[in-house]
Amino acid sequence: MKNGVDINMNRLRFVTSNKGKFYEVKSLLADYEIEMFNVGYPEIQASDLEDVACYGIRYLWNEYGGNLFLEDSGLFIHKLNGFPGVFSSYAQNTIGNRGILKLLSDEKDRRAYFKSVIAYCDEKGSIKLFGGRVDGFISYEEVGDEGFGFDPIFLYDGRTFGEISLDDKNKKSHRGFAVNEFKRYLDNNFKEVL
Amino acid sequence: MKNGVDINMNRLRFVTSNKGKFYEVKSLLADYEIEMFNVGYPEIQASDLEDVACYGIRYLWNEYGGNLFLEDSGLFIHKLNGFPGVFSSYAQNTIGNRGILKLLSDEKDRRAYFKSVIAYCDEKGSIKLFGGRVDGFISYEEVGDEGFGFDPIFLYDGRTFGEISLDDKNKKSHRGFAVNEFKRYLDNNFKEVL
Repeated sequence: MKNGVDINMNRLRFVTSNKGKFYEVKSLLADYEIEMFNVGYPEIQASDLEDVACYGIRYLWNEYGGNLFLEDSGLFIHKLNGFPGVFSSYAQNTIGNRGILKLLSDEKDRRAYFKSVIAYCDEKGSIKLFGGRVDGFISYEEVGDEGFGFDPIFLYDGRTFGEISLDDKNKKSHRGFAVNEFKRYLDNNFKEVL
Repeated sequence: MKNGVDINMNRLRFVTSNKGKFYEVKSLLADYEIEMFNVGYPEIQASDLEDVACYGIRYLWNEYGGNLFLEDSGLFIHKLNGFPGVFSSYAQNTIGNRGILKLLSDEKDRRAYFKSVIAYCDEKGSIKLFGGRVDGFISYEEVGDEGFGFDPIFLYDGRTFGEISLDDKNKKSHRGFAVNEFKRYLDNNFKEVL
């Protein structure tokens, strides 16, 4: 329900197996009914998140129809030519934050950005992409217990993402920006319909 | 032609865009007519080379029919939980050999292996996988100008793969083993037919 009118959004499905990510996104899309849709899809080895997201959402459309979206994100480190980028999950699970810090030991250029891409496929199979990016630096050590993944080594505005609350992170994070862009699209789209 | 009989192998296509790899494999399959087939296919983000190869060959079968094969390989480092593994090309293009050496600085456990997987799809769409593996160590510095990729930091039998000739490498490398396994299959398969 939105503005008292049934807009048939009860089938908007967020394709993810990550409960933390699901609740993070759900809290930002509180006006909509979001269902966690835990199915697998192929993530290709491309250099851009957009390519990975596009390929995935097309596969999902073919298998499960529309009214669904996915989110993919990555950490891109300037001095490492964008590594770990689209392979962030894999890098996190293998070399971890310690590995990243080691790769950057003795490096003064610690610029990095987090990027998030949301791919949405509507009921007719039309696909839209929404992105968010936040620029910061890699810290010299892990700080903070909040968040997950690379959060404790990503410095933004004097603190790491591991030091700020989820609410605070949603206001300034790549994923927060991407979800808000997606939300604006949904809002405008349904304004037109209503 | 093989054994004087036309075995209709003139359409055995090796799917790759890497000329070095093509000639390396072609030299090992000299009895067969191999054609370089430079088309793209999706490489998924899986943790096993087998999964990546299987997904790719199924895609290729659907798009281009059978009588083709692909080869995928990776370097798996014990102390780094298998990193860079299936993402070896990406790691090579971003952090490079220097990055790997940095990740292993102060590490005494330098065990690593190269693995190669060949996926072959015959005329009827039947898929077979062939594998090769070679165990060695990561060196403390880059040595040698032969080969490509991680060869100069992969120590085997006292020398790096960057120090040995292609002929020598074909005799002891992961790719050489996989191609020879594939060759045995082709040989036996066609013996049955003849």
